[in-house]
Amino acid sequence: MTDAPDAPSMQWLDDGGVTTPEGFSAGGIFTGVKTYGEEPRLDLGILLSDRPCEVAGVLTRSAVTGPAVSRARRLLESGAPARAITANSGCSNTVTGQQGIRDTERIAQLTADRFGIDPDGVFIGSTGVIGRLLPMPPIEDGIAKVELSEDGGAAFARAILTTDTVTKEAAVRFEVDGVTYHVGGCAKGSGMIHPDMATMFGFITTDAPVDRVWLQAALGLIADRTFNMLDIDMDTSTSDTVLILANGTAGGEPIGRGHAAAGPLASALESVARHLTRELARDGEGANTLIETVVEGAASDEDARLAARTVVSSPLIKTMVTGRDPNWGRVMMAIGRSGARVEQEQVSVWIGPHCVLESGTPTAADLAAVSQTMDADEVQLRVDLALGEATATAWGCDLTTEYVHINADYTT
Amino acid sequence: MTDAPDAPSMQWLDDGGVTTPEGFSAGGIFTGVKTYGEEPRLDLGILLSDRPCEVAGVLTRSAVTGPAVSRARRLLESGAPARAITANSGCSNTVTGQQGIRDTERIAQLTADRFGIDPDGVFIGSTGVIGRLLPMPPIEDGIAKVELSEDGGAAFARAILTTDTVTKEAAVRFEVDGVTYHVGGCAKGSGMIHPDMATMFGFITTDAPVDRVWLQAALGLIADRTFNMLDIDMDTSTSDTVLILANGTAGGEPIGRGHAAAGPLASALESVARHLTRELARDGEGANTLIETVVEGAASDEDARLAARTVVSSPLIKTMVTGRDPNWGRVMMAIGRSGARVEQEQVSVWIGPHCVLESGTPTAADLAAVSQTMDADEVQLRVDLALGEATATAWGCDLTTEYVHINADYTT
Repeated sequence: MTDAPDAPSMQWLDDGGVTTPEGFSAGGIFTGVKTYGEEPRLDLGILLSDRPCEVAGVLTRSAVTGPAVSRARRLLESGAPARAITANSGCSNTVTGQQGIRDTERIAQLTADRFGIDPDGVFIGSTGVIGRLLPMPPIEDGIAKVELSEDGGAAFARAILTTDTVTKEAAVRFEVDGVTYHVGGCAKGSGMIHPDMATMFGFITTDAPVDRVWLQAALGLIADRTFNMLDIDMDTSTSDTVLILANGTAGGEPIGRGHAAAGPLASALESVARHLTRELARDGEGANTLIETVVEGAASDEDARLAARTVVSSPLIKTMVTGRDPNWGRVMMAIGRSGARVEQEQVSVWIGPHCVLESGTPTAADLAAVSQTMDADEVQLRVDLALGEATATAWGCDLTTEYVHINADYTT
Repeated sequence: MTDAPDAPSMQWLDDGGVTTPEGFSAGGIFTGVKTYGEEPRLDLGILLSDRPCEVAGVLTRSAVTGPAVSRARRLLESGAPARAITANSGCSNTVTGQQGIRDTERIAQLTADRFGIDPDGVFIGSTGVIGRLLPMPPIEDGIAKVELSEDGGAAFARAILTTDTVTKEAAVRFEVDGVTYHVGGCAKGSGMIHPDMATMFGFITTDAPVDRVWLQAALGLIADRTFNMLDIDMDTSTSDTVLILANGTAGGEPIGRGHAAAGPLASALESVARHLTRELARDGEGANTLIETVVEGAASDEDARLAARTVVSSPLIKTMVTGRDPNWGRVMMAIGRSGARVEQEQVSVWIGPHCVLESGTPTAADLAAVSQTMDADEVQLRVDLALGEATATAWGCDLTTEYVHINADYTT
């Protein structure tokens, strides 16, 4: 694992996604479950590998989860190879009792039947309203009819969206010792997103062959630096799921500790995960501006993470960015309550390139110019605690009246 | 300390406040520090006792605080009797370095000089924008000119407001063994309010004689059941301060453990604190609706508190109330992520009088009727975890587009 995101040979691929790695196909279809969202309104997607995959995952830590999450936890523990992910949007099938469990199992069985694979290789994702049963007849029909193809990653990415306005996809290619590997991914999630857990849906594929234990360890570290550093609205989904499927089509020995491709693969996975995380932040419900917070000089990694996450989680920071208001006192408020060790006389704060507080003393920064810097698609807030060497980065978005409109009218 | 809020003989007093107890006077004046807010726009207030008071306090736990909070912490530890509180709004004098410390000390000295009291008996409160120096000449002028009177509690309550739209005041009277006691209070705080700490300003007075150690212990318990169960926007002020001043004018032995009036006094203090807390929630920035969350059947007190506070803190719960949307799945989401022990098959949820989830199974409640119940000044969400006997109540408010407007335009 490396902090440097991009391996030397790594290239970003235009229009890449989960079907960019070799041996994956996917597709999406509209069944009628999702009654809102952008056109074309797909709401059921299947991602399929033409051979068994090693799989790693991180799941919501919420005490309230749906049967899809329980099933994923069971499959991950079983060590069974993965072949497919069937995901729907519009209904999370959570708090739906025994019928909800039966419905999830039936989706897995129907997927397995259609493609002639083991049901224990089928992961399910369900996202959307909590507390409603899935309308099974249209979903069954959709599983029977959805067409998969090697360029179907975009349709799959669209089928998992809820209040998202755009799909989030990425893919990279890199070479080690003459072997070419690909990593692709897609993600969804626009509200109910807070970084205390595995966040939202993130599905990542690779044609690299991997050692499963190494992959799970790598995903844990990567999720803590990417998806788990994302905050849109402080709320945590009951359905948060990140899965990596590695089908080994690229060939060679399984990549794990000591393999020449281990570092580059970890970098590629982290690059894709970071890209997806930033895209999720940018498309937060009602958001106009991505907020990136960098905390440096923290006394410990945990302090750096706490401070960075508290800043991007703060409604008053969010609204300060909404208003292009260089009210840096709110940054001090947020780090003050974060639980991180802070000596306020030591702290320096930057908004974009402008230092507004230097070692605890307000600078003569031209606040009108700072405000102008904030009138952008992306605003960086940087804090130097000057207590140590630890750093962390977190991502969030501004809070607008549109967020309130979206969430005041979601089920009714 | 009792859970029953109202002692048998306790009476609420119309138009009561911090000067209702005997021996207190107060007043407020406009100095020009606060450039926003409702008319009449007072921004400096002084509360004075005509004799020394026992004093107890709880202060923000933020690592970033202003010199007024540091001073209060020092005075509380010193055991010195209190005589006065001088508070201003519009500028919190936080992150203002050595000059900020000198300004706070000067306000205390000028107050002491004017009234011929010991400066160590003067508490300071400063609330408003962070990171700006106080404009001292108008404040010095205000201290010299503000007129105090026995019915000046309302002016003092108004002088401490920031984005609040109304003053929050309360007073009660009760009798024990033929002695009449009064408790009065006022509070302020409309944004940057989250229950992990002593929250906002709450100033409470009583003419009861009290034992100081008992008073501090009582305040700790009361704050944990009232002010610390309030959430408006998840952010924690750097200036949060709750003080009780007890001047003993009612006469008799100091009230403490074993005194016949200890229970009634604790009840009266808690009643006033709870009333102020509810008024703060009701006047949250942009709020239309007070949300009261009652969690019952928790496995522990800590679990009950966690679950209740998480529900009132959730942006998705807040916007669900804004939209009168009976989307109870969000209540499950919130308790699921709260950290409290939850067995989702056991949980029951009520919105107002309507049971929407019974032992993990959605009921046939008429959601249109539930929505109508939510169209009110006050909405109660009740959760029974069915795991134990512990209960807790928390208060918050809905999240409206007005909150975003208020906070996107606060300093500029």
